[in-house]
Amino acid sequence: MEINMTEKALELLKAKRFVDLKNLFVVLNGPDVALILEEMPEESLPVLFRILPKELASEAFVEMDFDSQEVLIRAFTDKELKEVLDELFVDDAVDLIEEMPAGVVKRILRNTDPETRRVINQILNYPEDSAGSIMTTEYVRLQKEMTVDQAFNRIRQTGADKETIYTCYVTDERRVLRGLVTVRQLLLADREQIIGDIMETNLISVDTMMDKEEAVQTLSKYGFSVMPVVDKEQRLVGIITFDDALDVIEEEATEDIAMMSAVTPTDKPYLKTGVIELFRSRIVWLLVLMLSATFTSIILTSFEESLAACVVLTAYIPMLTSTGGNSGSQASATIIRAISLGDVDLSDLPAILWKEARVAVIAGAVLAVANFVKLLIFDKLTIPIALVICLTLYATVIVAKLVGCTLPLLAKRLKLDPAVMANPFISTIVDALSLVIYLTIATAVLGL
Amino acid sequence: MEINMTEKALELLKAKRFVDLKNLFVVLNGPDVALILEEMPEESLPVLFRILPKELASEAFVEMDFDSQEVLIRAFTDKELKEVLDELFVDDAVDLIEEMPAGVVKRILRNTDPETRRVINQILNYPEDSAGSIMTTEYVRLQKEMTVDQAFNRIRQTGADKETIYTCYVTDERRVLRGLVTVRQLLLADREQIIGDIMETNLISVDTMMDKEEAVQTLSKYGFSVMPVVDKEQRLVGIITFDDALDVIEEEATEDIAMMSAVTPTDKPYLKTGVIELFRSRIVWLLVLMLSATFTSIILTSFEESLAACVVLTAYIPMLTSTGGNSGSQASATIIRAISLGDVDLSDLPAILWKEARVAVIAGAVLAVANFVKLLIFDKLTIPIALVICLTLYATVIVAKLVGCTLPLLAKRLKLDPAVMANPFISTIVDALSLVIYLTIATAVLGL
Repeated sequence: MEINMTEKALELLKAKRFVDLKNLFVVLNGPDVALILEEMPEESLPVLFRILPKELASEAFVEMDFDSQEVLIRAFTDKELKEVLDELFVDDAVDLIEEMPAGVVKRILRNTDPETRRVINQILNYPEDSAGSIMTTEYVRLQKEMTVDQAFNRIRQTGADKETIYTCYVTDERRVLRGLVTVRQLLLADREQIIGDIMETNLISVDTMMDKEEAVQTLSKYGFSVMPVVDKEQRLVGIITFDDALDVIEEEATEDIAMMSAVTPTDKPYLKTGVIELFRSRIVWLLVLMLSATFTSIILTSFEESLAACVVLTAYIPMLTSTGGNSGSQASATIIRAISLGDVDLSDLPAILWKEARVAVIAGAVLAVANFVKLLIFDKLTIPIALVICLTLYATVIVAKLVGCTLPLLAKRLKLDPAVMANPFISTIVDALSLVIYLTIATAVLGL
Repeated sequence: MEINMTEKALELLKAKRFVDLKNLFVVLNGPDVALILEEMPEESLPVLFRILPKELASEAFVEMDFDSQEVLIRAFTDKELKEVLDELFVDDAVDLIEEMPAGVVKRILRNTDPETRRVINQILNYPEDSAGSIMTTEYVRLQKEMTVDQAFNRIRQTGADKETIYTCYVTDERRVLRGLVTVRQLLLADREQIIGDIMETNLISVDTMMDKEEAVQTLSKYGFSVMPVVDKEQRLVGIITFDDALDVIEEEATEDIAMMSAVTPTDKPYLKTGVIELFRSRIVWLLVLMLSATFTSIILTSFEESLAACVVLTAYIPMLTSTGGNSGSQASATIIRAISLGDVDLSDLPAILWKEARVAVIAGAVLAVANFVKLLIFDKLTIPIALVICLTLYATVIVAKLVGCTLPLLAKRLKLDPAVMANPFISTIVDALSLVIYLTIATAVLGL
């Protein structure tokens, strides 16, 4: 759908048929308009933006990529900028400010009202990746002395600007979080009932400094649409809503997958990422891993004579290192994902090692036996050589599984991202270990 | 927290202090109670379940793992089973039925009322992984002739059983979806206003047969908390809510990560997965990949004489195959994730190939030059040998990137999961290709 729409919009733009363009846009939603605008020539963005109805324009603005947003902000008059900013939720304004160059940030802050500016600065001060950094402050606050009727009046008066009105928080005079009521409860309650009597007091909240991933896991675990964020004194400072939670979960999975494949994560869609940017996100890891493969060359060089004496051993090096690498990355990927989902932590290491050791003993045996049969029947190797290869295979699988499950937990302990330690490093380590095992067993058994 | 609670609960259970146990549970939420119950001895589950207040018991039941649920269902009287089932939303009941053995399913269906049974059977008929299979049917339906006041009355009367009341759908006499109103709009509207006048008609919906991942991406893209599901005649048949969307997004990421690491996905948490189950999820892939490494042995064996003539070449085989593997999996992981996020599809292949080719030309050059310097200065190789290794490196990086970005899209085209084609297969293919390149260049340049 979007492709046809985009082509149509480009045609209309070329023909300067702005009324038709407007009619094309007004039946769409903000995210769809944003997708089309992003494909238009940069210099036409301000014109196109100005033909949109104000509300749709703001809805589209917040969904556009940062490059297009910057183009627009630079073209806006102060009045236009102020109108767009007024429609933004605080958390979206913070996202915007974090991505804009300093000059643009100054203009944005100059055009927000003092109260919003104060809140933005406060949220900007929370550490990156903390719950505080992704929260918004636009929630409905009630007092426990209110009646249901009064609560509805408060919601009607203040609700238009709030990110959600369906969960309202009850705080005391010190802003400490005391309870919550949902609009569902309010609708089903009697109009004269007192909030303090119907509110839920059995509350789950997250701390401003909690890791955002953990905060979002908590929201997901309880199936909440919104999660209150409190400071150390249990004062309510903000909320995290489910749509931000969806974004965090997708982002974190994308980051994990990138890092597990030795790519530095970027937050741009693939087709919008330039060649140089892709190159930069990959080259450092490739260089580091290429140079760390030096160990494998050193090992092989130091056994050069043994290998020359029995050249057939060389033919099985790729099979051994790749099976080891695969065994290790199976274990590491499973553990990295379990860490991300909050299923395991360092205290589980003994249980994990014991479980992986048993899996490795069984899996290694099956692989070694299958390979032994294959080596004797199809490759027609002698029994001692087949034995060397299969013993190495067995030992490598066990070592690889144990390394694979230990490294991610170790990384976590060292406050590194577990995903960084995954496949690439593990295969480098397992490559080296498997070669040492191979050549040691070979010299011992074959007397090279 | 849960660990201490679990220990405490175990102690109280051993001492048969059931009143204290009840007091421990009643201040907790359903998901927390479920976590504790799952750690209790199986035979005590029915007793523990019966001391919980009914509502909490149902909330905990729906969060428990399928094994514990089965134990409980088998212990329930028909009356108890009916009470628990009455509290379940239809989509949770469907999940339950999908996991239980046939005998238990029969008992469940016998104890649900006929209307629910009809709906459950209907949802069970949608293909696995379709939007229809994860939807629920408990939404609020309004008519466009109603006033706001009448709408509130309808919500109050029927809302208690609905999964969400905050977005209400307006349908005509044929059940065709015509509009939606949110409770926020209703609260801000005049009591006498007509729904048809305030409802939004610019609707986004998904089809029952749409892939569930795509349906959830749509919900996430628009930041909706709920997404209507319609059949081919645009009749409203159900809704997908944000909490199910969160689950689908996490599940899909877990599956992608598992498959990219050559593990068959399971939906159990790591620590609850048995050794045999882990073994099963890994062994097939390990065997297939080990046997497909046969190609590398065949290639090396057929060049045995050349290698014997220049043994130093052997020392660089692991470096070449691992750098090739890393280059390929960087590209494949990036593309697989972009496919999952709906950023690219097969029609983008030419653009992707062109982009990856340019990245590979730059990255390959940097790696080859760095390696050439290292080989001459540190490893003290001769220029012809260093040249053979670095030319191979350059060619391998380019081939690996192109294979890495093509295979996932090809898999998608063949209706296979792109993630299955990732790292493991790509390294196997790249291993073989890089060896052919290596030994061909070596024989040509060194005249072996």
